[in-house]
Order: sequence, then structure tokens, then C-alpha cells
Amino acid sequence: MTSHPVIDALLAELGADAVITHADSLEAYRHDRANDPNAGTPLAVVRAASTEDVQAAVRIAAREGVAIVPRGAGSGLSGGSSAVDGAIVISLERMRQIAIDPTVQMAVVQPGAFNAEVKAAAAAHGLWYPPDPSSQEFCSIGGNVATNAGGLCCVKYGVTTDYVLGLTVVLADGRAVKLGGPRLKDVAGLSLTKLFVGSEGTLGIVTEIVLRLIPAQQPPTTLVAMFPTLAGAMQAVVDIKAAMRPSMLEFMDQVAINAVEDVMRMELDRTAAAMLLVQSDESEAVAAAQIVAIEAFCEAAGATECYATSDPDESEALIEARRMAIPAVERRGALLLEDVGVPLPHLGDLVEGVAQIAERNGVEISIVAHAGDGNTHPLLVFDREDAVQSTRAERAFGEVMDLAMELGGTITGEHGVGRLKQPWLADYLGDDVLELNLRIKRALDPDNIMNPGAVFGPL
Amino acid sequence: MTSHPVIDALLAELGADAVITHADSLEAYRHDRANDPNAGTPLAVVRAASTEDVQAAVRIAAREGVAIVPRGAGSGLSGGSSAVDGAIVISLERMRQIAIDPTVQMAVVQPGAFNAEVKAAAAAHGLWYPPDPSSQEFCSIGGNVATNAGGLCCVKYGVTTDYVLGLTVVLADGRAVKLGGPRLKDVAGLSLTKLFVGSEGTLGIVTEIVLRLIPAQQPPTTLVAMFPTLAGAMQAVVDIKAAMRPSMLEFMDQVAINAVEDVMRMELDRTAAAMLLVQSDESEAVAAAQIVAIEAFCEAAGATECYATSDPDESEALIEARRMAIPAVERRGALLLEDVGVPLPHLGDLVEGVAQIAERNGVEISIVAHAGDGNTHPLLVFDREDAVQSTRAERAFGEVMDLAMELGGTITGEHGVGRLKQPWLADYLGDDVLELNLRIKRALDPDNIMNPGAVFGPL
Ligand SMILES: Cc1cc2nc3c(=O)[nH]c(=O)nc-3n(C[C@H](O)[C@H](O)[C@H](O)COP(=O)(O)OP(=O)(O)OC[C@H]3O[C@@H](n4cnc5c(N)ncnc54)[C@H](O)[C@@H]3O)c2cc1C
Ligand SMILES: Cc1cc2nc3c(=O)[nH]c(=O)nc-3n(C[C@H](O)[C@H](O)[C@H](O)COP(=O)(O)OP(=O)(O)OC[C@H]3O[C@@H](n4cnc5c(N)ncnc54)[C@H](O)[C@@H]3O)c2cc1C
Repeated sequence: MTSHPVIDALLAELGADAVITHADSLEAYRHDRANDPNAGTPLAVVRAASTEDVQAAVRIAAREGVAIVPRGAGSGLSGGSSAVDGAIVISLERMRQIAIDPTVQMAVVQPGAFNAEVKAAAAAHGLWYPPDPSSQEFCSIGGNVATNAGGLCCVKYGVTTDYVLGLTVVLADGRAVKLGGPRLKDVAGLSLTKLFVGSEGTLGIVTEIVLRLIPAQQPPTTLVAMFPTLAGAMQAVVDIKAAMRPSMLEFMDQVAINAVEDVMRMELDRTAAAMLLVQSDESEAVAAAQIVAIEAFCEAAGATECYATSDPDESEALIEARRMAIPAVERRGALLLEDVGVPLPHLGDLVEGVAQIAERNGVEISIVAHAGDGNTHPLLVFDREDAVQSTRAERAFGEVMDLAMELGGTITGEHGVGRLKQPWLADYLGDDVLELNLRIKRALDPDNIMNPGAVFGPL
Repeated sequence: MTSHPVIDALLAELGADAVITHADSLEAYRHDRANDPNAGTPLAVVRAASTEDVQAAVRIAAREGVAIVPRGAGSGLSGGSSAVDGAIVISLERMRQIAIDPTVQMAVVQPGAFNAEVKAAAAAHGLWYPPDPSSQEFCSIGGNVATNAGGLCCVKYGVTTDYVLGLTVVLADGRAVKLGGPRLKDVAGLSLTKLFVGSEGTLGIVTEIVLRLIPAQQPPTTLVAMFPTLAGAMQAVVDIKAAMRPSMLEFMDQVAINAVEDVMRMELDRTAAAMLLVQSDESEAVAAAQIVAIEAFCEAAGATECYATSDPDESEALIEARRMAIPAVERRGALLLEDVGVPLPHLGDLVEGVAQIAERNGVEISIVAHAGDGNTHPLLVFDREDAVQSTRAERAFGEVMDLAMELGGTITGEHGVGRLKQPWLADYLGDDVLELNLRIKRALDPDNIMNPGAVFGPL
């Protein structure tokens, strides 16, 4: 192998163990789960073991003017950790320490720890880290912070940012700063901690996180309802949300129901147009009353079947079905994944509009949704080898985002802009807000070396 | 009166009704509740009636290079809305519209509305806006956003930022931007909404706010416990917090108890060294069990008296006593108000250290605290006319912040840096984080016209 000054510097500073340069091994670090065909090939992957490792790699990149792509577990759905040609991918996968402090109900975690590992460590102390992306078993907490990840219980318990008290961040010039810390309240200076949450690796690399934990959740009651029409299910969502605060309110359409049933065989009604999964984790009497009310709303909206259970295993199986929805639909073909969200009263318009877009473009679009948040995932299924289908899917992908914007919604509720939604960001934010974003990006990363492929693109 | 180009421009754009220039009338806009003796005298006060009014005033200020001081209700305790000589104070007091949307459980409010008015409007729809600074009856929601205000229920329900979904902000160049909006989840672009929360008017002026509401709180049970020692009360706080998540956990020391008793005559034990006020708003059975446990923790820590009530009026009277603490102590003399917070295990060290600082400097320091958050308000009482006392109080004021920093704490948990804590900000943040703050400040307000007296001071 011919030597390369950047690789030589990385090897000298970090050792051969931490630096991957072999083409075959690089391949695994080129994509996230969006499988962007335009992902580049990095020069090297640094598997950092400490904040200092990250600083060393960033200093080299800054000095040599090489781009950096931060990478957690690569479960992203927007191409946010897709590699850039010639870049250094900094992978946090080896930094996985978790320390729980039960007296203050906080966790100090390294970014590479999986979400589910943080949850498990907290649970060992009777505590709970709520945010629960469906990918919880295979996404990193650093990736969650970088995307401000949502999930199923977020309809009641909020999203990642609501639990982040402090961050250690390596900046674009290699300095490491501690923002916030193990204090429930701190207003000294600007809210930089919150600015870094959701910044998708474009402002710095998160190397440590202080998380707020809460007491363990009450055992929830779960209700599943099947609907003959999409509109009925949407109506039920709006009615339930206006009346109470469920701890989960999820949606799957017929394609998703069938795809899950193909994989999991749990006797879901394949003829139903839609399924809702609703939970209450209030205390026994309140939960019982809420479940009665939820059932009444579902029936009034035309549900053909309602089934409630407070058996933990049965509940978990139903939720697992919802978590399987994206991977199950993925078996039908390549996916372009949307993440559009609208104010709740427009949820029905969105779902109906998406069906029209599917029909108009001759593309299959299945919808799963964190419905209670107004956050939907239309999944465009197509054959990547088929040029006509690919073009149609790409056109429909844009039309769905345009529709969401028309309805007062967002182009991304939780997955991030990444690469795939970057062309729509300017439209969504408008000139002034985009410019405000860029002023901050430039102030913190003047040479645009931090994840330059994602969110903003070339400056 | 001689004419002044800035005043002339303001009058021409906004009309005489909206512009105050008379010295007597200006006086009311020079101070907040910190009564900073160094507050300046503004050139004019603009009483804006709309976002457009604010924009017009900011454009004039930007053009003429005049400083702007945004002002809500002036209840701040850190000198954040103290006037600057020759500045335009932009008062939001006339912008008070509140619109509640019960279907999506959100409020769209203008910044001048009082916190309690927002709460009342939400309550009319069975909804709740939790953050409850003790000043709720006389502080504006815009001021709450600008300081990221906390309060009594925040120990369970979080602070202002946790409820802010969207903002309209007038930037330093007079442009108005909409950040976020009525969507529970939105990760498109940087988290600018959250960046503006807590920015104390140094980045822009908030002219509209979209707030998340939640269902009305369950009727709480309130327990009051009296302790013969400070240490005992602090121990009980730590024990309670490690075991559960109370919906309130407040503290008053002997001076505060007596000051409140002087005003309210509610037969509080004047000999007690400390009083805790603890609430549970869980459902009946859970709350009952929690109150039993809280009482046990208090007694184990030496409480001489515990009294629990679920009578709403009695509860409210006890909370009112806590809310009165600062105004009641204020009757004893001028106050220098601290707002230091520490990680909970160090709360006892902080309280003890403050007592030593009081003794060493010969200053009276009373402490009230949002104890469950680790956020305390040492109140330094002195006679402003007495130069020796004033000097001592100022020295002690700094020593308390130094102590909080030594204990891993913050110089301000909820009141903001304002003017009074500005000299300590650099020490607290450290060079790198301060520089990061300044990069953002400069990127958004390059001429430093937005509240230049506060937080950062001259750039
Ligand atoms: C089946 C499936 C279901 C999913 N369900 C959900 C869901 O319910 N809710 C949800 O929000 N998401 C969901 N996702 C998307 C994805 O899991 C989340 O976006 C997750 O937060 C990404 O974490 P990661 O560690 O895999 O990050 P990556 O994919 O590696 O990276 C994501 C982004 O974060 C940046 N990044 C990663 N780590 C760091 C760091 N330490 N410092 C700075 N930047 C960093 C990357 O540069 C990239 O921009 C799902 C994905 C799949 C495959
Ligand atoms: C008795 C008493 C008890 C208190 N208890 C608490 C408490 O429990 N918790 C707590 O957090 N605070 C408390 N406070 C402090 C104070 O009430 C809060 O800081 C409150 O948020 C200030 O709101 P305001 O409208 O009075 O703002 P002001 O005092 O007018 O301004 C505060 C800061 O915000 C800026 N600002 C105001 N409005 C805007 C706007 N629209 N856009 C941009 N910037 C703006 C100002 O420039 C200034 O920097 C208490 C005060 C008193 C007197």
C-alpha cells in the first residue's frame, strides 16, 4: 500500500488497531440503513476509544482539510452517516461505557452504547431512560443525540433532547468542551447543549452524554384496534389525543400489517386497512378508564376489532410487531423512507394525500407512524435495479415532503435531514431561517469539515 | 424637548402612543426586581403591539447603532432587563394574546401574557402549562422563555424549554423568523428554537411562542415538615429524590420561615431551622404511599413535625407561603439574590458553606430553594445605604458562586446571568465554552446591540 500523509498521521497518533484503511473493511462504514447509492468511500475509519482519540483524529483532519463523518451504529434512515469520498469516518462504536448514578437519577454514557443497553443499565437500578426508537436494540445513544431521536413512548415522554443534561463535544478544531452537566437546571450562558442535540454531526462529535433518568414505567395496558378504513383510524388518533395523553399511539397500514404478519405470524387481520396500537401506563384505575375510552373512540370511528391486554409478554409482542414494521416492509424491495410530520388535525389529509401520490406515480407506499405525534413514515417500496421505478420513487419522495409542508408540517420529525432530505431543507426552512442555520454552522465549523455531506451540503 | 433622530424615527414609525420618552415614565423601565443600582437610563421605551412594531424599532436601532433592551414584566432577579444608557427598551407588556388549541393541546401566546394568564387559559380547556415560577402572577411568558424559567413543579415536570415548540423571533437586523411550530417533533435543521430559549434577549426578541400543554394535574397531596437542623432537611431531600419523583420539593430556612410568618401568620414553627414542602400528584393510592414514605424519610432525618393535607385550599396556602418567601425576606432590607445550583448530593455542602460565608463576612444570608432540583436561592440581606454592608454583601455574593462552582454546580439555575452574574460567567464556563458562546452571539448579533449589558457584556 502506498503511504498517504493523513493515514500515516492517523496511524502514528492512534495505532494500527484504531485505524481501518483496507477497502473490504471500509465497505461496512460507507452506508447507514438508508443505503444511499451515492455514498462515498472514506479514506479511513477511526474506531475511537476515547475523547482524546476523537480529538487526535479531528486535529489531523482539520490540519489536512479532510472531511469528517461521525458514525454511531449506522442505523440512520436519512443517509446522515453515509461516507464522503476521501473523508475520515470517526466511529464511536468502541466507546460504550455506561455509569448510572441512582441517587441523582442520571446516567453518564459514552456515545457508542446502544439505546437498549442504556435502558437496561438504568432498569438495573429501577430507573428508566424513556426515548425508544424502534431501532433501540441496534442504534447508539450518540446517534440518538445527534438526530434527537424519537420513538414510541415519546408521545407522552418526549424525545431525546428532553433527557440530555450535558454533553462532551469535540469541536471542528479538535478542542473538547463540556456543555451542561449533571444538574437538572443550568441557565448560565446559551443553551449549547440543546443546540448540539439534533445537529447530526455537523457541529461536532459527541463523546460523552449526561442523561436524566426517571423512575421505572408503570406496567402498561396495550390496546390494538383494527380499522376497515384509513380515515377511521386517523379520526380515532385525533379523538384519543384530544382526550388524554396515552403513553403510545402507533399506526400501521395494510401493507405493513401484512408484511409484519408474513414475518411474525401473529394472526393480525390481513384485510384491515389500518391498525392502531395504543398504551396507557397510568395507575390501574386510571389506565382502565382510559382503555375503555380509547376503545369507545376506536369503535365510534369504525374499528372492527379491539383487543386490550395488560399481560406484559403479550404487550411486548404487539409492540415488537410495530418495531418490525420497517424491516418487514424492507423485504418487499428497496425503501425510500419518509419521516414527515404534520399538526395532528392534518394527519388524515397527509395519509390520504400520500395514497394519491402513490397512485399518481405508480409507486407502492406503505405507512407506519408514531401517529400520536403526527409523525409518519411513508415507506416507498421499489426495485433499485429498475430505472423507471427508481425515478418514480424519487419523484414521489419529494412530493410527500411537499405535501407535508403544504399541511404545515415538517420534512423530518425524528430521522434527521441527513443526505436524502437535504435538497428539501431550504424550501422547508425558508431563506431567513436557513441563513440563520448557516451562520451558526459557519461560526462553529468555518471550514465545513464536520459531516459536510449531510444537512447543509457544501457551504 | 429637543428632537433626537432616534426618537423622531420611533415616533414616525410607531406613533406617540407606543413611544415613551418622558423621564418620569422612563423610570419604571430602568430596573427589574434585582434593583441594580448601576442600571442606566434609556433614550426611549417602545411599547410594542405587534411583531411588526418590534421589527420597526429594531431596524431603527440597528441603523442608528443604538442598543436594545428587551423587557417583559421586569420581574427578573439578575438585572437582565436593566436599562442601558441611551438604549431603546422594547417592552412586550402590551402583546398579551393567548389562543389555546385543545385538540392539539397547544397554546399560541404573545410574550407579554403573564405566566398565570397562560395557565388560566389552558385550565379553561382542562389543560395545564406546568412551569410555575413563584412569580407566576407577575412575570411574562416571554421573560420565562428568555430566561428558561423554572419553578416549583419543575422537579417533576421540567422547565420552560421543555414546553416550547416554536418561537417567532425578531433578529438583530429586524428580520422576523419563525422557528419550530405546532409540531411535537421536528428535527429539520439545527435546534434554533431551543437555542433562543434562555438567551436572555441577547440573540433576538421573542414575539410569539407555541407552547405544548398537558392534561390537568391530578389534585396533589402536600406535606410540610419542620426540621431542627439544616443538615437534616438536606438529608431528607436527597433521600426523597433517590426514592421517587415528587411533584414539588421546596425548602425554606429559619429566616425565611420567620419572614413569611411575619407577613402571613399561618402558625409556622418559628424555632425550626428548616422547612420542606413536598408534593405528590400521583393517583390516590400511589400518592398516599409516597406521602407515607416521604414522612418516614423526614422523620428519620430528624423532622420534629410533619403535616400532610390533600385539601386544595390548605395545599395552596402552604405553597403561597413558599412563593412569598422572597418578597417577605425582601422586607428585611435590600437583597442580592443568588440562584446557585449543585448536583443533589452536594446540596448539604452548599447550604453549610453558605452559612460559613455569611458568618465570615458578617452578612445575613437566608436560603430558600427548589431543593429537589438542587437549585437554591441564598438571599443576601443588607442595607444599601451602608457602604460597609454593601461591600460585604457583594463579596459574599461572589463567594457563594465560587463555592457552587467548586461543588460542581452552576452560578444560575433559572434566573439567568443578567448583569449581576456576568462577572462570574467566564469563570464558570471556562475559556473554550465562553468563546463558543461568543461565536454564536457574534454570528447572530455582530454589532452587539441586543441586550449588550447582559450576560456577555461588551464584546
Ligand atoms: C428499523 C428501524 C427503525 C427505526 N426507528 C426509529 C424510531 O422509532 N425513531 C427514530 O428517531 N429513529 C428510528 N430509526 C433511525 C435510527 O435508528 C436513528 O436515527 C438513530 O438515532 C441513529 O443512531 P445510530 O447510532 O445508528 O446513528 P448513525 O446512523 O450512525 O448516525 C446518525 C447521524 O448521527 C451522527 N452521529 C452519530 N453518532 C454521533 C456522535 N457521537 N456525534 C456526532 N454525530 C453523531 C451521524 O453523523 C449521522 O448524521 C430507525 C431505524 C431503523 C433501521
Ligand atoms: C418573588 C419572585 C419570585 C421568583 N421566582 C422565580 C422562580 O421560581 N423561577 C424562576 O425561574 N424565576 C423566578 N423569578 C424571576 C423572574 O420572575 C423570572 O426570571 C421571569 O422569567 C422573568 O420574566 P419577566 O417577564 O419579568 O422578564 P424580565 O425581568 O422583563 O426580563 C428577564 C430577561 O428576559 C429578557 N426578555 C424578556 N422578555 C423578552 C422577550 N420577549 N424576548 C427576548 N428577551 C426577553 C430580558 O431582556 C431579560 O434579560 C422570581 C422573581 C420574583 C420577583
